[in-house]
Amino acid sequence: MINVILLGFGNVNSHLFKAFNNSSQATVKQVFNRSKIDLDSSSQSISFTDKISEIKEADVYIIGIPDDAISSFSESLILRNKLVVHTSGGAAMNVLSKNNRRGIFYPLQTFSKQREVSFKNIPICIEAENASDLEILQNLGKTISENVSEISSEERAKLHLAAVFVNNFTNYLYHIGGDILNKENLSFDLLKPLIQETALKIETLSPKEAQTGPAKRNDVKTIEKHLNLLDDSNYRNVYELFTDALKNNFN
Amino acid sequence: MINVILLGFGNVNSHLFKAFNNSSQATVKQVFNRSKIDLDSSSQSISFTDKISEIKEADVYIIGIPDDAISSFSESLILRNKLVVHTSGGAAMNVLSKNNRRGIFYPLQTFSKQREVSFKNIPICIEAENASDLEILQNLGKTISENVSEISSEERAKLHLAAVFVNNFTNYLYHIGGDILNKENLSFDLLKPLIQETALKIETLSPKEAQTGPAKRNDVKTIEKHLNLLDDSNYRNVYELFTDALKNNFN
Ligand SMILES: NC(=O)c1ccc[n+]([C@@H]2O[C@H](COP(=O)([O-])OP(=O)(O)OC[C@H]3O[C@@H](n4cnc5c(N)ncnc54)[C@H](OP(=O)(O)O)[C@@H]3O)[C@@H](O)[C@H]2O)c1
Ligand SMILES: NC(=O)c1ccc[n+]([C@@H]2O[C@H](COP(=O)([O-])OP(=O)(O)OC[C@H]3O[C@@H](n4cnc5c(N)ncnc54)[C@H](OP(=O)(O)O)[C@@H]3O)[C@@H](O)[C@H]2O)c1
Repeated sequence: MINVILLGFGNVNSHLFKAFNNSSQATVKQVFNRSKIDLDSSSQSISFTDKISEIKEADVYIIGIPDDAISSFSESLILRNKLVVHTSGGAAMNVLSKNNRRGIFYPLQTFSKQREVSFKNIPICIEAENASDLEILQNLGKTISENVSEISSEERAKLHLAAVFVNNFTNYLYHIGGDILNKENLSFDLLKPLIQETALKIETLSPKEAQTGPAKRNDVKTIEKHLNLLDDSNYRNVYELFTDALKNNFN
Repeated sequence: MINVILLGFGNVNSHLFKAFNNSSQATVKQVFNRSKIDLDSSSQSISFTDKISEIKEADVYIIGIPDDAISSFSESLILRNKLVVHTSGGAAMNVLSKNNRRGIFYPLQTFSKQREVSFKNIPICIEAENASDLEILQNLGKTISENVSEISSEERAKLHLAAVFVNNFTNYLYHIGGDILNKENLSFDLLKPLIQETALKIETLSPKEAQTGPAKRNDVKTIEKHLNLLDDSNYRNVYELFTDALKNNFN
């Protein structure tokens, strides 16, 4: 059994809390948060503290707080020579205080409190300063996911960058699509089956194989028509940039 | 029972063929294609022709060929005063020959021959010159989908434009993400759970509610770091354009 203490209780750590609770190989021994938290009734028995000085002993401490707060928070811990990890894709391992053994436990997924997620397929990217800690993190990852990989800080930075493209920027394209329909009083619901199928296609085809559309086939008439329909200059910039890129890369 | 004849047998019409065959309310009476086609053994009994002069009588004729070929192909038909529709999001209804009653039967989805799709939730966008034809298309749509809407040519042009953003451009973002990982010898598979969850989120949250990331929270340090990691100037342009747009629209 691996004992975990969660430090912070935001999107990531509240989901990790549920995932570890549902696993038989890991247990959340304590949750620290600087302010009081809501735990649903089934979890009332969990030990909670808002005092740094009351943080207990455990195998792994997981810091799940905003990137720019990790460094000073990890310095403020009274723990010494414990395995302390953070969950960030964007922050390096060395932002953590040297007072403890450092590591990373980065779940490559988008989390928000409103949505349940299953960890089973979520890639858990781990890193540690020494082999025995890496093994602990490997075993901890396996308690919730079938997909645990050792990833260096440099690789993780690239993963995080790629995630910004496929998550943040894709979501903004959904917003543009919805906005174009909204101006015609058409429902965003009309686009949902297409959005789901676009995502599902890349489970079996590479994005290059899945690519279709006027830009790919250099359909100048349609591209011209679309540019005329776009009155928002920002959307037009996106359209032109992607159309040029697709014409150059996919023909 | 509604009788349909399919003119052309590409991505769309080959999927419509299967969908109508599986419905008890519609039947494909004949398939025309200018060159021979492959039909799987279960459908060998279908009547096929490659001669315009042999096209039979039916309630609805569905042209499913590339947009720029629709006009001259529809002129070449010997049929008169029949209900002839096309399946294009981008072409107006009036590209069809006036020799017949004109209409639209546009399934808002991405089709490729390799992938099975269920029509049940696919929006079918219909349009016709007169009310009785609109009713025929409504009934035909209902034989395969629960989601049939009357959509004007202007609205359809906007739908098609929105579809380019959420399908073609999104798929290109998947390509960029994969390419960034590929250069690190990391597998595109790592991004797949994130891509699926990004799409699933907008089933319950609006894109605005679902938006996260460094640009949205104006995390200047991370944005700077990402721009330094991007050596492809094209990807960097995409990053800057989206980051500016998100900073301006979502804060
Ligand atoms: N959200 C995602 O999709 C996601 C995915 C993968 C990785 N990550 C990474 O996981 C980490 C946590 O992200 P998140 O979305 O879970 O964050 P979040 O929900 O914004 O985290 C809020 C938590 O951080 C605490 N906190 C904020 N500032 C603090 C400070 N100065 N000192 C101590 N605690 C502080 C908050 O405490 P209070 O309740 O007292 O305010 C709260 O418990 C980040 O490194 C992020 O990059 C996030
Ligand atoms: N694919 C999609 O995701 C999608 C989605 C919604 C709507 N649409 C629309 O549906 C229509 C068909 O698209 P698609 O993807 O199914 O097209 P496609 O697969 O490229 O269509 C190929 C078919 O068109 C025939 N064809 C090509 N040029 C022709 C010509 N000059 N005269 C007669 N037949 C010709 C081909 O005949 P041969 O076999 O003899 O070459 C073949 O049967 C288009 O209007 C498109 O905009 C497509």
